[in-house]
Amino acid sequence: MDTLQSFHQRIEKELQQLRFDSQPKELYEPMSYVLSLGGKHLRPVLLLMGCNLFEGDVERAVKPALGIELFHNFTLLHDDIMDNAPLRRAKPTVNKKWNDNIAILSGDAMFAYAYSFISQVDKNIFHGVLSVFTKTAIEVCEGQQLDMNYETQLNVSIDEYLQMIELKTAVLLAASLKIGSIIANAPANDAQELYEFGKNIGIAFQLQDDVLDVYGDKNKFGKQTGGDIISNKKTFLLLKALELAKGKTQKELDAQLAAKDFNPEEKVKRVTAIYDELSVKKLAEEKMDFYYHHALTHLANILVPSSQKILLEKFAEKLMVREV
Amino acid sequence: MDTLQSFHQRIEKELQQLRFDSQPKELYEPMSYVLSLGGKHLRPVLLLMGCNLFEGDVERAVKPALGIELFHNFTLLHDDIMDNAPLRRAKPTVNKKWNDNIAILSGDAMFAYAYSFISQVDKNIFHGVLSVFTKTAIEVCEGQQLDMNYETQLNVSIDEYLQMIELKTAVLLAASLKIGSIIANAPANDAQELYEFGKNIGIAFQLQDDVLDVYGDKNKFGKQTGGDIISNKKTFLLLKALELAKGKTQKELDAQLAAKDFNPEEKVKRVTAIYDELSVKKLAEEKMDFYYHHALTHLANILVPSSQKILLEKFAEKLMVREV
Repeated sequence: MDTLQSFHQRIEKELQQLRFDSQPKELYEPMSYVLSLGGKHLRPVLLLMGCNLFEGDVERAVKPALGIELFHNFTLLHDDIMDNAPLRRAKPTVNKKWNDNIAILSGDAMFAYAYSFISQVDKNIFHGVLSVFTKTAIEVCEGQQLDMNYETQLNVSIDEYLQMIELKTAVLLAASLKIGSIIANAPANDAQELYEFGKNIGIAFQLQDDVLDVYGDKNKFGKQTGGDIISNKKTFLLLKALELAKGKTQKELDAQLAAKDFNPEEKVKRVTAIYDELSVKKLAEEKMDFYYHHALTHLANILVPSSQKILLEKFAEKLMVREV
Repeated sequence: MDTLQSFHQRIEKELQQLRFDSQPKELYEPMSYVLSLGGKHLRPVLLLMGCNLFEGDVERAVKPALGIELFHNFTLLHDDIMDNAPLRRAKPTVNKKWNDNIAILSGDAMFAYAYSFISQVDKNIFHGVLSVFTKTAIEVCEGQQLDMNYETQLNVSIDEYLQMIELKTAVLLAASLKIGSIIANAPANDAQELYEFGKNIGIAFQLQDDVLDVYGDKNKFGKQTGGDIISNKKTFLLLKALELAKGKTQKELDAQLAAKDFNPEEKVKRVTAIYDELSVKKLAEEKMDFYYHHALTHLANILVPSSQKILLEKFAEKLMVREV
């Protein structure tokens, strides 16, 4: 079994053993439920990898890694209320299975438990770990608010969009790696380079998500193709298309966005044709590559032997082709 | 100016200077707004008093005290969503002035900022302070969930009620004092005695609240008399009355609780008459006295000169007659 697989299994085993069976059950059952829905556990695995990169004792990183997963699930609980989402990983969301109030409060409790788990580190690094985490938690809230704002904001620039995905998605991946590196007592410069690696990979990952929603293999990717197009979601592809479209193409795109009564399949087909015409997929992939290579540069700057970096390099590569 | 007054002024000055003017404004404006609504700032003042009791440097307790106030306001933001409350201190709640989603997310951000402020303590006490805070945050969530459960639960015992108010209200007062004492490097035993003092005072305080809602002077207390009766809120008075009422009185009480279409003033008058008949006010005051004296015993156990305890004793006394 390779190291990455062993990290995944370690996290899954811990999550299965995690029992929130205290009282009142209305508070704790939703926490166990949302954790039982599975997922890729990207963030806790990144935390272990951040520790492993500097030859730290990965066992010492397990509790904080679970804390990061709890935090991520807290954000999912609250995001699902705000989006009025009925499903999460093909199962009813907490707000639908129970109700909004229970989802608010279970989420709050999960946030506190996240701190409880992340706090389980040596005292000499406690302050460093917690300050990275708190800063990140604030940024994730800012990112979510920007995402909500952009739903109704008329003109969103590509730069605004990139800042939003950095805050909403990328900084938590970055912080997970950095916290792992602090647990391994990595030098501050190296910990920061690893943070930048994670942040850039995170942005590339989100751009990849935008592309896959339209161009991904439905069976492989597990989501309906074109969901973002149907809901007029302001992804990189749409924002770039809005920036580039002129004349007839612009009119056609505006008409598709404005249509109230439409055939979803037809809308996906026609907007995709506009994307193809404007080559926005290629532009998104170029942007993705830019961040991906930027990430690798930061990884290269870290002062550990190249052989120790292979795992993260492979992980980043896999992330980009969505094999993890 | 006495010490207590100076603590109040110190907190108010800091709160006025606290600016959440970052972006996005939809996240930060509600935070500034809810803090601007005022209030008694009980919890941060208790934190300073906990520090002062052990002759600690109160200046070092100011940031954590603000953190406790931020945490308290985060719970108010989320409680107001759950209760669908239109007003808070006679001003529109964040959920009404903005909307539920903004109240959820601003609350989440405030919780993270609470950690940021509470973290501003010396490294040697950081772990101790944070673990008290995180444990308390979890308990407050449990208390709020119990409170919501009891709204619809048919039979709530007095013991269940007391446990709920301990979690929802008392432990945060206790934790505020204890964190102050840790900042002053108080011995662990003394810090725990102070915690117990705060917890017992907190329960007495909430029982007092129940009594004042029915028997308080409307002008002095600033709330409509009998609000709890009108909404069938399961207070100590109601639960005790339900326990004691027999025969005709029981029927009358049940009828008042079941009535859908009623004159509020008349309902308050008639339920109050039942409370009087059953002497539940006296029983509540006896219970209150029990906790109050229990609190004073814990204060007496603390190994500092009696003269240093006077401020807390006076504060507790004032709290009981609602002059603070």
